[in-house]
Amino acid sequence: MKETIGYLGPKGTFTKIAVDSMFNGDVKKGYSTIPECIDAVVNNEVSYAVLPLENAIEGTVNITLDYLIQAQDVKIVSEVIVPIRQHLMVHPDNVDKWTEIDAIYSHSHAIAQCHSFLRKELVKVPAQSMTSTGAAAEFVSEHPEQNIAAIANHLAAKEYGLSIVKKDIHDFDNNHTRFVVLHKSQTELTSNKMEEKGFKTTVTVTLPSDQPGALHQVLSAFAWRNLNLSKIESRPMKTGLGNYYFLIDIEQKMDDVLIPNAITEMESLGCKVSVLGSYPYYLHSGNGVTLAV
Amino acid sequence: MKETIGYLGPKGTFTKIAVDSMFNGDVKKGYSTIPECIDAVVNNEVSYAVLPLENAIEGTVNITLDYLIQAQDVKIVSEVIVPIRQHLMVHPDNVDKWTEIDAIYSHSHAIAQCHSFLRKELVKVPAQSMTSTGAAAEFVSEHPEQNIAAIANHLAAKEYGLSIVKKDIHDFDNNHTRFVVLHKSQTELTSNKMEEKGFKTTVTVTLPSDQPGALHQVLSAFAWRNLNLSKIESRPMKTGLGNYYFLIDIEQKMDDVLIPNAITEMESLGCKVSVLGSYPYYLHSGNGVTLAV
Repeated sequence: MKETIGYLGPKGTFTKIAVDSMFNGDVKKGYSTIPECIDAVVNNEVSYAVLPLENAIEGTVNITLDYLIQAQDVKIVSEVIVPIRQHLMVHPDNVDKWTEIDAIYSHSHAIAQCHSFLRKELVKVPAQSMTSTGAAAEFVSEHPEQNIAAIANHLAAKEYGLSIVKKDIHDFDNNHTRFVVLHKSQTELTSNKMEEKGFKTTVTVTLPSDQPGALHQVLSAFAWRNLNLSKIESRPMKTGLGNYYFLIDIEQKMDDVLIPNAITEMESLGCKVSVLGSYPYYLHSGNGVTLAV
Repeated sequence: MKETIGYLGPKGTFTKIAVDSMFNGDVKKGYSTIPECIDAVVNNEVSYAVLPLENAIEGTVNITLDYLIQAQDVKIVSEVIVPIRQHLMVHPDNVDKWTEIDAIYSHSHAIAQCHSFLRKELVKVPAQSMTSTGAAAEFVSEHPEQNIAAIANHLAAKEYGLSIVKKDIHDFDNNHTRFVVLHKSQTELTSNKMEEKGFKTTVTVTLPSDQPGALHQVLSAFAWRNLNLSKIESRPMKTGLGNYYFLIDIEQKMDDVLIPNAITEMESLGCKVSVLGSYPYYLHSGNGVTLAV
């Protein structure tokens, strides 16, 4: 059966790379904001939604999390980790004169991520902010008469017919974005194209009061069970400054004993605990990039 | 003496509200990316830089932190917390017909933050993404012949002569952005306009290895000294997936005994510890907003 998949549009972004790695011939629908995309799952407009959760360029963890925590019947059922690789690309007509480009178009975060390259190799070329790396690539493809370049990923180059003239121009290697797949029930979604890297259970824990050492006590519940935490992050609650909850990734599938017991103990200490999902995660292998020069 | 202050431009953004709350008649210079702004401090082009550190709309904590950790002689010397309040604004010519607007312009994150309002009151009006809330306000001010609105803050309304027709349209109250003031020496910067809310010391801690319970042990060093942690966040290191360091805010000024001893003990456990700054923090009071309707 064909499913309908919602994602944070437009085409040619890192989110779309994540969508294509998890879903094949399904109907894919781009939404312009994260809340709209989560609403689409809630209202059964789409079966799954793919959204950036951490360290994204186009989106932000805050908005995905804020709305995910509100939409209580929507769960994380899978995760794809995509390497962030930025390339410099131009219209095919302008491949030979890319070292003399007049302007660079991209999302401001992508421009920031290529700061060292730009300072070294294209120092006097003005950079122009666009709403996404995909929008920048589209603009460059529509203006062959201008000698301009876009910073974007390989999918954007393919989608808009641009030629990559310099690859991997981002400052930090090993920069990744986590994309989560959301669904209306707790049924994990496995991939038949990527190798499973492991399993995670994501919970939020609200401490009973802002007291020194409370977090230390909560972590004990995990530590003495040898439950490895791959992530712990304090995040402000929307009820006022200074109130935090903790977002915790346990590097393990939800089981019948260890995790439920840890949760029960935290609750007996006065904590509020919610499970956002228990799901497999995958690492996108990255794609080969062919240089035009 | 007049100082030169760098900030993440353009005008009319929340970053500019933070700058104006900390600095009076100084020379203020907008930069288009976060790394450029940090470089300006390193190269003595500016004395101070003001950048978003957490939960920002225009920027992102990741980029500020990544480059701050690299620029080792630059320290956090002060912090301003600014409430995020979004308003709907139109050109003064169009105040009477704002309920029939044809399009809404804003940054995609601001559009997402006003999701409930838009769905309830302006459901069929298309939203157009811009590179910042300031750029959206500028666009609306330049097109009085179009019946369009921008979502932006009160400073943007003032800066571009727009009329606020609906105030506080954001979904979550108590949403704040932390802005840090960076400087080339560890001299704290106090404000004479805002009341000091407290003092923080921000450290990064890299654990010796990815073992269950290691974080628990590190937190013990704080817990038994009654050092309250107002924030703890695990963040990926740029050396590969699965390697994390911790960003920790201690709710206390750097002292001669407690914090240095905690750091020494963590180091003796094999941790790498860096102090990003010890600084006072302030809460911007927000501004009164006058409705045009």
